[in-house]
Amino acid sequence: MANKVQVLYDFTAEPGNNELTVREGETVTITNQGVGGGWIEAQNSRGEVGLVPEDYIELPGGGGNVGHVAAPVAAHAPDLSFFDAFAAPANNTTQNQASNGKDPWSVWNQDTTGGSSNNWAAQPEGTVTGKSAAPDPWGSTAPSHPQAYQGPGAEDDEWDDEWDDVKSNSESGDGGAIQRGGATGSSMKISLNKFPGFSKSGPELFLLCKQPPKGKEKITIYMGEVGPVWSYPEAQLDCVVADPKKGTKMYGLKSYIEYHVIPNTTNRPVNHRYKHFDWLYERLLDKFGSAIPIPSLPDKQVTGRFEEEFIKMRMERLQGWMTRMCRHPVVSNSDVFQLFLTYKDEKDWKTGKRKAEKDEDVGVMIFSSIEPEAPDLDPIEVEQKCDQFSRFTKAMDDGVKDLLTVGQEHWKRCTGPLPKEYQRIGKAFQNLSSVFTSSGYQGEATLTDAMTSAGKTYEEIAQMVAEQPRKDLHFLMENNNEYKGLLGCFPDTIGVHKAAIEKVKEGDRLVAASKITPQDKVTMAKRVGTMSYALQAEMNHFHSNRIYDYNRVMQLYLEEQVKFYETIAEKLKQAHSQFTTM
Amino acid sequence: MANKVQVLYDFTAEPGNNELTVREGETVTITNQGVGGGWIEAQNSRGEVGLVPEDYIELPGGGGNVGHVAAPVAAHAPDLSFFDAFAAPANNTTQNQASNGKDPWSVWNQDTTGGSSNNWAAQPEGTVTGKSAAPDPWGSTAPSHPQAYQGPGAEDDEWDDEWDDVKSNSESGDGGAIQRGGATGSSMKISLNKFPGFSKSGPELFLLCKQPPKGKEKITIYMGEVGPVWSYPEAQLDCVVADPKKGTKMYGLKSYIEYHVIPNTTNRPVNHRYKHFDWLYERLLDKFGSAIPIPSLPDKQVTGRFEEEFIKMRMERLQGWMTRMCRHPVVSNSDVFQLFLTYKDEKDWKTGKRKAEKDEDVGVMIFSSIEPEAPDLDPIEVEQKCDQFSRFTKAMDDGVKDLLTVGQEHWKRCTGPLPKEYQRIGKAFQNLSSVFTSSGYQGEATLTDAMTSAGKTYEEIAQMVAEQPRKDLHFLMENNNEYKGLLGCFPDTIGVHKAAIEKVKEGDRLVAASKITPQDKVTMAKRVGTMSYALQAEMNHFHSNRIYDYNRVMQLYLEEQVKFYETIAEKLKQAHSQFTTM
Repeated sequence: MANKVQVLYDFTAEPGNNELTVREGETVTITNQGVGGGWIEAQNSRGEVGLVPEDYIELPGGGGNVGHVAAPVAAHAPDLSFFDAFAAPANNTTQNQASNGKDPWSVWNQDTTGGSSNNWAAQPEGTVTGKSAAPDPWGSTAPSHPQAYQGPGAEDDEWDDEWDDVKSNSESGDGGAIQRGGATGSSMKISLNKFPGFSKSGPELFLLCKQPPKGKEKITIYMGEVGPVWSYPEAQLDCVVADPKKGTKMYGLKSYIEYHVIPNTTNRPVNHRYKHFDWLYERLLDKFGSAIPIPSLPDKQVTGRFEEEFIKMRMERLQGWMTRMCRHPVVSNSDVFQLFLTYKDEKDWKTGKRKAEKDEDVGVMIFSSIEPEAPDLDPIEVEQKCDQFSRFTKAMDDGVKDLLTVGQEHWKRCTGPLPKEYQRIGKAFQNLSSVFTSSGYQGEATLTDAMTSAGKTYEEIAQMVAEQPRKDLHFLMENNNEYKGLLGCFPDTIGVHKAAIEKVKEGDRLVAASKITPQDKVTMAKRVGTMSYALQAEMNHFHSNRIYDYNRVMQLYLEEQVKFYETIAEKLKQAHSQFTTM
Repeated sequence: MANKVQVLYDFTAEPGNNELTVREGETVTITNQGVGGGWIEAQNSRGEVGLVPEDYIELPGGGGNVGHVAAPVAAHAPDLSFFDAFAAPANNTTQNQASNGKDPWSVWNQDTTGGSSNNWAAQPEGTVTGKSAAPDPWGSTAPSHPQAYQGPGAEDDEWDDEWDDVKSNSESGDGGAIQRGGATGSSMKISLNKFPGFSKSGPELFLLCKQPPKGKEKITIYMGEVGPVWSYPEAQLDCVVADPKKGTKMYGLKSYIEYHVIPNTTNRPVNHRYKHFDWLYERLLDKFGSAIPIPSLPDKQVTGRFEEEFIKMRMERLQGWMTRMCRHPVVSNSDVFQLFLTYKDEKDWKTGKRKAEKDEDVGVMIFSSIEPEAPDLDPIEVEQKCDQFSRFTKAMDDGVKDLLTVGQEHWKRCTGPLPKEYQRIGKAFQNLSSVFTSSGYQGEATLTDAMTSAGKTYEEIAQMVAEQPRKDLHFLMENNNEYKGLLGCFPDTIGVHKAAIEKVKEGDRLVAASKITPQDKVTMAKRVGTMSYALQAEMNHFHSNRIYDYNRVMQLYLEEQVKFYETIAEKLKQAHSQFTTM
């Protein structure tokens, strides 16, 4: 246990993260090598104990191959040599961290004005290679307002623990690593997963790998009308998440919900629990996260006051997430996604699961599968487009959050004071009507009937007003919430690309310093080109989906709004017709 | 000046009213006989100075005729002999007091729940013959909430002083009398005017007057389908209050507004200032107040933030008041009302004015002009109907106030937070639209145009929501406000009748005690019958007007509401049509 090792590079601890500041050449004692997540616990000569990136120290048995063992290009360790930036993928670290970050579904839009722009600014573009350099862009969001809209009836979280025991093992007993990954309360998991252990991080892994692995999955990019586009399948994959059923295990002590997932390709339902979706999410994030924003799953914390409400809400959001994944030509075509949708039996599922978990073609290496079938792009144009997209996603993020805030307030008014007021108007009319009935005057009936009817109409309107948000505003909110989550993934996706571009720009210097060969430089430029293609294909995919989604949701919203106001007008017209002036 | 006089009856001062408690037989010194309003200022032997009802003391020159000089049947002087209850009309006391009470127009609906019922209960039915016995039924209303609806833009009261100098003379320098009449902050002027000086008060004046004056104006009551009804004219009198013009006097130092009043009989406009309306109100109250509820004029205090708004609002309310008076067959047919509408020139006006002010056929003596052309009514049935009507008006008063409260809150929401919210929704859509425009993606224009348009639509809706209350709720509120004022007059009207019935019930006892002759008793019963006819005719008038008014205002309200919601639906339909799903 008392394993003394040498520190390879300076590392400055981040306050509050149980980290230990170490200096190059210092000797520390490893106190716990099994922390996971790319970290080890160590004690320095002053007796201080804390976490240190395992790549920063000469681990026993791996001490010789400094050239291959990756040290992170962390923001606070800027003078690393280029070749040191290679990182061996740490062993499946995401499992421990993914479930800890708060995702955007659970917390709608807290930092609406001003605050969010700071978050974006805090994202140091082009240096997304270290843990501290890629802070969660929405990390500073405040806790959710208790009355804020979180979907119908979201309130407590007891159901979740009951029904999704999925990570209870891996979550407990490994607090240090969890702290690490999710400490900032991230609203986006990709940033926590791509660079947590300084392992699969930098784009250099791909840019300078000796020989890109010949993966079975080839991802093609064409030049379309709008620029580079993914190769879209002729038939759009789709699936239905339905028929939630309660199951139990441990002799009924634990219950869970199992959903049917029915792809339009086989029309055969497969069963999945939330934890399976979560597993799928982790695989997709691992595999595609560097090139494709993989939005978080609906948060486990999103819960309903009633069992039915909770299940319905989660199912709706799982459906939304699956639909988005199905619509992505790269994701939907992947082995792991297909496995999820079409596994034949338990054995098939388990085999596929094991295989997917062993997939090494993950992280930035996804770019090695991408084959742009088009001429090289102009790097300057690429960078401009990239910057424009970066600005765009930030601005859209602000806009989406603004809309969410406004919608939340509107939701509150529509379900709170406004219907109460209509109800009171209705009651006041009916009350006056019953007073009139007591007049003893002849020929009163027509008026009193009409006033009672008008009063009831306003009570009906009250009911309508209160129920309306679930019919229209809900979908507008869900759509924007989904986009908020999606947009939150882009800073990292863009960051990976920017980091690659920066590396290529250093090419001449690196050649001059004999750190890379001229051929390496050419290879890098070529490979960055591939990354650029991928980013632009993804940008275009995002835009076209966005245009579709916003058209659709606005149509739905306005359609329901029209119906709403028309129904009110019709009801009032009816009420009006009962009054007569003598 | 140091005029020593003897006190005829016990009088207990009301605290805080500058009154002086005196005992029968006590000698006091008159310190000011010119206080007015049926009061004199006196000093007792202990040097205490205060106001005493002039009828309670043996005034110089009038000391002998105790049998004719009226002493009030005040609640705190209950043992007066019946004959003492005759009161000579005090000389035009209303002039000083009428303008001091707060009227219902200025203060909408303060005591909405619970409080009002106490007010009604505090009205001691059947003993409305003394100052203290007839407290203003809404007297305990709290001050108006500053944000409460008082018509568009009601806020300050500077205009009023500027423009209606009407009572500045009589109001100033006569504080004692004003205190007297209006001290309780009455919302209803009739109670302050009928019994302030213990003069025209009790119904006995009419019930036992030796020979009802043969007035020129005869008021007929027929038996209609619904019971006793006033004789309605074939052509309904109506008038238009229009063309407000600013005039000045005192070399431009003082300005006032003059309105055209155009009756449908002559179609010839006559000019009137607010003070003329107020004069008319006083005359009508004096003359008809015992039999017919004469609602207060729009309060002088109702003012607008802007000159135009103020003028418009007052004109609208004067119009409402005039319309109601025109619709009353008795009021509209009276000399004074006709004078107001059709005076030919300044001389004609002044002559008529002087004549009207000298009219002695006022107070309860109005009943002497009434001639029911129908058989006697069953007294028990009359009393039941009277009680029913009393309960009805109280219940309606509660209902009306409830509606006013609800309407006020709705008004506030519709002009405050609600349009702001729609505006924010509109802005959020437009904001997102302009973000989308910056995407650089092709084929974005349709969506962004549509979203901008949807955003503008919601801004238009915001505007509509804010403007709507003036188009519909306003009239609903004004109507109910008018009725609130009208209903506030009924406790006294009913009280006069109840007091008369009580007197008749005492008939046998009074005959036995030789206080009245058996013939007097028969006369009293006959005359109470006339009063019952009048009350029932007025009840029926009220009911038929109420049914008409509420039908009309509800129609108007719902019509505008339908238009409002239809317009919104139409606008949203337009906005909807611009979105397309690819």
